[in-house]
Amino acid sequence: MASEPIPIVGGTGALGAGLATRWAQAGAPVVLGSRSAERAAEAAAKLREKVPGAQVEGLLNEEAARAAGIVFLTVPFRAQSENLNNLREALRPGQILVDCTVPLAAAVSGKATRSLGVWQGSAAQQAQEMVPEGVPVVAALHTIGAPTLADPDAKLDEDILVCGDRKADKARVARLIELIPGLRAVNAGSLEMARIVEQLTPMLISVNVRYKAHAGIRLTGLPEDDHWS
Amino acid sequence: MASEPIPIVGGTGALGAGLATRWAQAGAPVVLGSRSAERAAEAAAKLREKVPGAQVEGLLNEEAARAAGIVFLTVPFRAQSENLNNLREALRPGQILVDCTVPLAAAVSGKATRSLGVWQGSAAQQAQEMVPEGVPVVAALHTIGAPTLADPDAKLDEDILVCGDRKADKARVARLIELIPGLRAVNAGSLEMARIVEQLTPMLISVNVRYKAHAGIRLTGLPEDDHWS
Repeated sequence: MASEPIPIVGGTGALGAGLATRWAQAGAPVVLGSRSAERAAEAAAKLREKVPGAQVEGLLNEEAARAAGIVFLTVPFRAQSENLNNLREALRPGQILVDCTVPLAAAVSGKATRSLGVWQGSAAQQAQEMVPEGVPVVAALHTIGAPTLADPDAKLDEDILVCGDRKADKARVARLIELIPGLRAVNAGSLEMARIVEQLTPMLISVNVRYKAHAGIRLTGLPEDDHWS
Repeated sequence: MASEPIPIVGGTGALGAGLATRWAQAGAPVVLGSRSAERAAEAAAKLREKVPGAQVEGLLNEEAARAAGIVFLTVPFRAQSENLNNLREALRPGQILVDCTVPLAAAVSGKATRSLGVWQGSAAQQAQEMVPEGVPVVAALHTIGAPTLADPDAKLDEDILVCGDRKADKARVARLIELIPGLRAVNAGSLEMARIVEQLTPMLISVNVRYKAHAGIRLTGLPEDDHWS
């Protein structure tokens, strides 16, 4: 697992680039996917500058998605369906797709403090409907702020709520999340719980505006031991 | 404010009794409301036993609701509408109603890890529609567990997300919440944000089952200073 790269579809966007920064800092190899091979290569070069020694490659999204068993999708909601359509030929049964999409009303020029209703219940459930048979979707990383991730000096101190229908899949994703210091992955339940977890983002955005802050979520009162093993 | 009691409509229920325990411990006078005067008196006697020196009175809900300017409604979703109907004659313009209702699917014999869609968007917005003109609704205290509150030895360590349309109203409610050691009141935005905050409870219930825990919510990354003043 340690040597398998982490492919990020939408890796040139704010969340994708932020995650890539942290994984690169942690010594994990990363593949940045983009719709444009040029932009992917540029983003990879930028990351190597930012994090000396970063193991990073820039590829087309579809190529990035073939690079490893766990693929992160970090595009805005507006682009989620299009990206999932494009990934249909790339994803193979047994891969896991980690959907980080938040259905902010901003996708249709509404407010970032409001959300859209997704027919399936959540963006993650929409993703589950669109991926090829045999590709489980895990939902995670909705509540972490891209600016905080992208600032290599900012200290992280928050939980990542992970939703999915199989604990084994969530555990594999949790291991990747917890490569990033300051993040703890919490098992937030089945994929349908993404209906709730995705909603935290507009609430946090409103808190951030009000407090001029970069707020994150922590769950208190959980046992200290590693529950993923 | 310090001498004005805290009326709790539904004060004999789990959440109401738990809050009453904590406020009594903090030296705040409490009025427990119930549909039955006998049960209200019994609950008050029980609280006096549990917290020696507790200033507590048991009254009918409608009488309790007249006891002070800020009234807490802590009944299950199933009983929310009925209680609000009964309070129509009791509440007066200028009072604040603090709605703590969570629309769990358990209200219709569904799961406590799922929620019901409320036409108005949230139970709190339903409450706002039902209270007399001039009574603002503030939504709070959805995510705190009744068992933790009721155990006087359990240490609290969590945030209470407070939603409402006027900051001044939320600040008054926040002062009462923060009488309880271990709780911090966070301004989570306008009343419509209750759509999101109420949803946290089914998610936490599912986490509690999975982790055999009493989880609470904390927002990290907020400034330390008191932002309510």
